[in-house]
Amino acid sequence: MPDLASAIQAALAERFGERLEIDSELQGLDEIARIAGHRVHRRYLPRDISPHLMRLLCACALSAPSKSDLQQADILVVRKKEKIHAIADLLPDMPWLREAPVFLFFLANARRLVKISTMRRKPFPNDHLDLFFNATIDAAIVLTTLLRAAEAVGLGCCPISVIRDHAATISKMLALPEKVIPIAGMCLGWPAEEGGITPRLSLNTTVHQERFVEKDFSEIDAYDRRRAAIRPYRNQRDPEHFGHQEFYGWSEDKARQYAVPLRADFGAFVRAKAFNLD
Amino acid sequence: MPDLASAIQAALAERFGERLEIDSELQGLDEIARIAGHRVHRRYLPRDISPHLMRLLCACALSAPSKSDLQQADILVVRKKEKIHAIADLLPDMPWLREAPVFLFFLANARRLVKISTMRRKPFPNDHLDLFFNATIDAAIVLTTLLRAAEAVGLGCCPISVIRDHAATISKMLALPEKVIPIAGMCLGWPAEEGGITPRLSLNTTVHQERFVEKDFSEIDAYDRRRAAIRPYRNQRDPEHFGHQEFYGWSEDKARQYAVPLRADFGAFVRAKAFNLD
Repeated sequence: MPDLASAIQAALAERFGERLEIDSELQGLDEIARIAGHRVHRRYLPRDISPHLMRLLCACALSAPSKSDLQQADILVVRKKEKIHAIADLLPDMPWLREAPVFLFFLANARRLVKISTMRRKPFPNDHLDLFFNATIDAAIVLTTLLRAAEAVGLGCCPISVIRDHAATISKMLALPEKVIPIAGMCLGWPAEEGGITPRLSLNTTVHQERFVEKDFSEIDAYDRRRAAIRPYRNQRDPEHFGHQEFYGWSEDKARQYAVPLRADFGAFVRAKAFNLD
Repeated sequence: MPDLASAIQAALAERFGERLEIDSELQGLDEIARIAGHRVHRRYLPRDISPHLMRLLCACALSAPSKSDLQQADILVVRKKEKIHAIADLLPDMPWLREAPVFLFFLANARRLVKISTMRRKPFPNDHLDLFFNATIDAAIVLTTLLRAAEAVGLGCCPISVIRDHAATISKMLALPEKVIPIAGMCLGWPAEEGGITPRLSLNTTVHQERFVEKDFSEIDAYDRRRAAIRPYRNQRDPEHFGHQEFYGWSEDKARQYAVPLRADFGAFVRAKAFNLD
């Protein structure tokens, strides 16, 4: 399928600024094309997602690998309009969130394992960072697998990590008990626009061979310029504070974003949810 | 494609003990079938994975969503036989690991953001749990996307979370600097066997509607029995200590696994890597 190989090549060239060699005889190129061409979707058609399809997507997501077969990830499906609006009210920068027919939460659930230990009358000498880490990663794996399944059937997704800014409020809203926390949310809907490819750091920066090699700032600078040529930022962040820059790239934007305290209370939230981070 | 829909239905019935309704007109059913039919692969053919294919898979993986576009995940590719053997030496329960032509590490890289802040002469008042959490989740998303791309082209994968038991040793082996940690490894190879479907907790246990609802132990018990009928454990864990049980299910196995201290030093490792978990 030379057309598919060319489409993948084009998407990855736009993303990484590199022309990759692609064997057009590879199996699964349609799936590779969807993964390579991943676009975030923030506008949705006024069309529902059937409960059957939603259950299929959840089943796909929960078919993903799980650390030591512990199954420490849950999915929480929100469809009620008033609840989706209440979530949107917390995130005024994301008004499009209201239009999503489904909003998902991915939950790190370390509670089940602890309860199973009690039920099986075993000691549980593992209430430390590892428990939090494993459940968090399991939930992220389930999130990603759901996103892949959703994109396969033609749905558009937008993972919403900013729910972490409101973790305690959302936790109450969803009646999450101790040792269960939301790691991220996700809007799901039938896409109303094509979406765009986000250029990424060069593979020479993020892929290491045999050992970690740190690149110098020239690589970041080259990325800033490549990206600005394709997808320039429309606005500079907080110009009252940081001034206006003639060239405004990704690294400047991210440095500005993290120059103010963000989620400083997240550790307190996680500890209040009875996770021990020692 | 009614055959594909039936195959998906069969895989998910084996996995979740539930017959899902599947619309055979859905697009992307081939991808859904691969996701729903996910099997772990621990035996590989003596056949290499070309550097071009490996680069394509890394590019696919790094096309995944990233929290706030911060790109805090790296991939480290190990191909050198002596290095793969050194990793296998750390994990004597996994001798098949030696046969994998490629071993990957997924790295949570919070270092880049901190360095960018310095280079851009901005303050960085965000050195707390959030930084660790975001980078960890980004790395898990990249891991999962790589797994999906690899399975699409016909490769077999086995994520190796147990590298967390040797985090400091592996960190030295890979020359990981401060604020970069491996979240998991992965064996990759052309599968030499079909692999099996792992039955999972019922969707009634792990998928919640609108709010979190905890199921009682009867759901776990039903899962233990459904699973044992399909995939009974060959051996009971640590019978010298816990005795022999007539019925030995998943919950008993997991309670026994976590009845001894595991990775109690993981928090110390993460802190030594200059992450602040407050």
